[in-house]
Amino acid sequence: MSEPIKGENHVVVIGGGFCGLYAVKSLRKSGVKITLIDKRNFHLFQPLLYQVATGELSPGDIASPLRYVFSGNNEIDIINDEVTDIDPDKQEIALKKGLVGYDYLIVATGVDKNYFGNESWQENAPGLKTIEDALAIRNKILYAFEAAEIEKNQAVRKAWLTFVVIGGGPTGVELSGAIAELAFKTLRREYHRIDPEEIEIILLEAAPRILSAYPDTLALKAGKSLNRLGVTVMTNSMVTDVSESDITISRNGEKITKHSKNIIWTAGIKGTKIADILSAKTGADLDRAGRVMVNRDFSVATCSNIFVAGDLANYSHQTGQPLPGIAPVAMQEGRFLARIIKARIKGKKIPVFRYRNKGMLAVIGRNAAIADFGVLRVSGFFAWLVWIFVHIMYLVEFDNKMIVMIQWAWNYFTHKRGTRIITSG
Amino acid sequence: MSEPIKGENHVVVIGGGFCGLYAVKSLRKSGVKITLIDKRNFHLFQPLLYQVATGELSPGDIASPLRYVFSGNNEIDIINDEVTDIDPDKQEIALKKGLVGYDYLIVATGVDKNYFGNESWQENAPGLKTIEDALAIRNKILYAFEAAEIEKNQAVRKAWLTFVVIGGGPTGVELSGAIAELAFKTLRREYHRIDPEEIEIILLEAAPRILSAYPDTLALKAGKSLNRLGVTVMTNSMVTDVSESDITISRNGEKITKHSKNIIWTAGIKGTKIADILSAKTGADLDRAGRVMVNRDFSVATCSNIFVAGDLANYSHQTGQPLPGIAPVAMQEGRFLARIIKARIKGKKIPVFRYRNKGMLAVIGRNAAIADFGVLRVSGFFAWLVWIFVHIMYLVEFDNKMIVMIQWAWNYFTHKRGTRIITSG
Repeated sequence: MSEPIKGENHVVVIGGGFCGLYAVKSLRKSGVKITLIDKRNFHLFQPLLYQVATGELSPGDIASPLRYVFSGNNEIDIINDEVTDIDPDKQEIALKKGLVGYDYLIVATGVDKNYFGNESWQENAPGLKTIEDALAIRNKILYAFEAAEIEKNQAVRKAWLTFVVIGGGPTGVELSGAIAELAFKTLRREYHRIDPEEIEIILLEAAPRILSAYPDTLALKAGKSLNRLGVTVMTNSMVTDVSESDITISRNGEKITKHSKNIIWTAGIKGTKIADILSAKTGADLDRAGRVMVNRDFSVATCSNIFVAGDLANYSHQTGQPLPGIAPVAMQEGRFLARIIKARIKGKKIPVFRYRNKGMLAVIGRNAAIADFGVLRVSGFFAWLVWIFVHIMYLVEFDNKMIVMIQWAWNYFTHKRGTRIITSG
Repeated sequence: MSEPIKGENHVVVIGGGFCGLYAVKSLRKSGVKITLIDKRNFHLFQPLLYQVATGELSPGDIASPLRYVFSGNNEIDIINDEVTDIDPDKQEIALKKGLVGYDYLIVATGVDKNYFGNESWQENAPGLKTIEDALAIRNKILYAFEAAEIEKNQAVRKAWLTFVVIGGGPTGVELSGAIAELAFKTLRREYHRIDPEEIEIILLEAAPRILSAYPDTLALKAGKSLNRLGVTVMTNSMVTDVSESDITISRNGEKITKHSKNIIWTAGIKGTKIADILSAKTGADLDRAGRVMVNRDFSVATCSNIFVAGDLANYSHQTGQPLPGIAPVAMQEGRFLARIIKARIKGKKIPVFRYRNKGMLAVIGRNAAIADFGVLRVSGFFAWLVWIFVHIMYLVEFDNKMIVMIQWAWNYFTHKRGTRIITSG
């Protein structure tokens, strides 16, 4: 791109996650010109990232090339680049490799990991946001078993076999459950010298209970399912320090040190750099997590043609609380932004956003899940089937990923994990 | 490992490739203790590596964890480590993390890439030996299309869209065919601004013809199939220089320069470091490619209990020429070594090795292949079906990779490539 693209109705979408993808999907074939900008060349099905981290799925299974998703849509331009600046006056975005003009701008970059000021912990407690994060965690877990197999020193071996997942949200719950299945079921026949009794998997949560966004009863059931899988759930437990082989926890005033070489961070989020750019250039307010406070129509500050949505937005107009950073919220917001832009272009009545909670799901291991559909709350195997169905249907919708369903069925019956390989990336 | 493991009949196998895997497979349940050492935790199905490089398969599809392959075999120890030295007198191997004793040693590490003294070319002309190599090439190819899509300068765009594969052996033939299919079929609907006329794919071979190990007629057919796919085959063409965006070729005394940002090296092999160690410690001779000259029973120099086989061995006793570095040779050698070791332990008659050529196969694109079964030489779609069958059966044998077959069928009918994603590893 050496000169700005700018048309009468040119919508630029930054970010090909759930929000951006649904916005573009709903805008296509409506006469507007669309440019979708993403750092990566694929849409990532983030809810299954923990399965890549535990060797159940390959990266390619949960990533759909954006160009493939929108192949044949000639009105959509896809640019694989990073945004470095936004100029609301000129209506122009600066990329590393050029400039792009816009009439309407949708910013949906999602959020980054947040170590709450303890950035030095990142090295020893990696997070789980990208494909690369997932592969790094997969390598870490598999390498730990290799190291434990040949380690003669009992204390060191125990540190290799202790897995600590920090953060009792859905990601932490799903990840710790998957690690337990990998450790106690899949790998047990393969390491002759490892005594399963030495394996310890801990899920840490600072609050009094895990899954704070879910009803009490379901969180309780999730905790029980985790225990059955062999996960020790520690609530009211705050991390105070992380080093290469140790984690220090403060729990009800007590200080606990665990020796562990496998510490994983799923505890916090923060707005991306683009939130700071928007704040500086438009005067938009940010919340404590660095997310952008948006107007009732998702526009920011006084810029009626710049919208922020998805995880990066703090939308508190509906319940007084920010809507949760989950895929269904992002999808509905993306679709809504397409509607509002189309309405404004055609001079029609501007719609009002209302999030419809269609349910929340979390999976615990191979047979259990919890689902909260408001009136209906289910757990166990039935919830697991619902979970599988919902996730597969999404993958199939965008990328004909039937193959993932077959792979899951296959892995389920054979207890096999296709991708337990240690690679340098 | 802190102390050497050494038993009465302890066989140590270095390398979990085709040779090592078949040796271990044939030795198990025969009363010997086996230790399999590999740098990586998986067996790699190398013949399909080019499909990972072109986004047709995921790394996990062609890699089988060694522990999975031998799960439940308690007499087999698997060590994930790198060999740093061999002591034939003490019968001991030094690893980075310990020592291992042996009674019989099989060295089957395979070979490395060879740039024939032009190691500086490696940066701009990566080779294809490991999963990481394949992912780097995949990223390179996909990134080139992204860059070409936004490049306004015609000459620079042409350099992004010119792909040069150096080396007309099976890997070069298969890789250039797969790049042509990716460029002309899969990607063509997805990049609005790229003119397919600007894409150029060149296969370079220094010898007068490609596929020198195959009969003339089949090589000719392979060349025609490549032309049909859009590959320009240049024989008698020697690379004289490689830089970031240029390759210089000498052809019949003429000097040709091509601007290309996608140069891939499949032209040469050389023995691994372990060949040098063996040469220094046992007095074994190496050939010009650094492979180990072995005795008629694959033992080296005067060490009757150290064997070298697979690609790393130069075995010229059968035809006067070294046996080719292909999977069937390695498998047969691995099986033979198991037989010879079992015979020696039991004091039985020592068998004599005879390679049985069951055929050679190479695939060109989605519909054509060539197969040389000695008396029967076939090409085209039937050869392609044979090729698919042979490769799948192998994968299924070791790792129940039925899923790969389904995936191929799926990709074949949908023209989809599941893993066209650019990741940092």
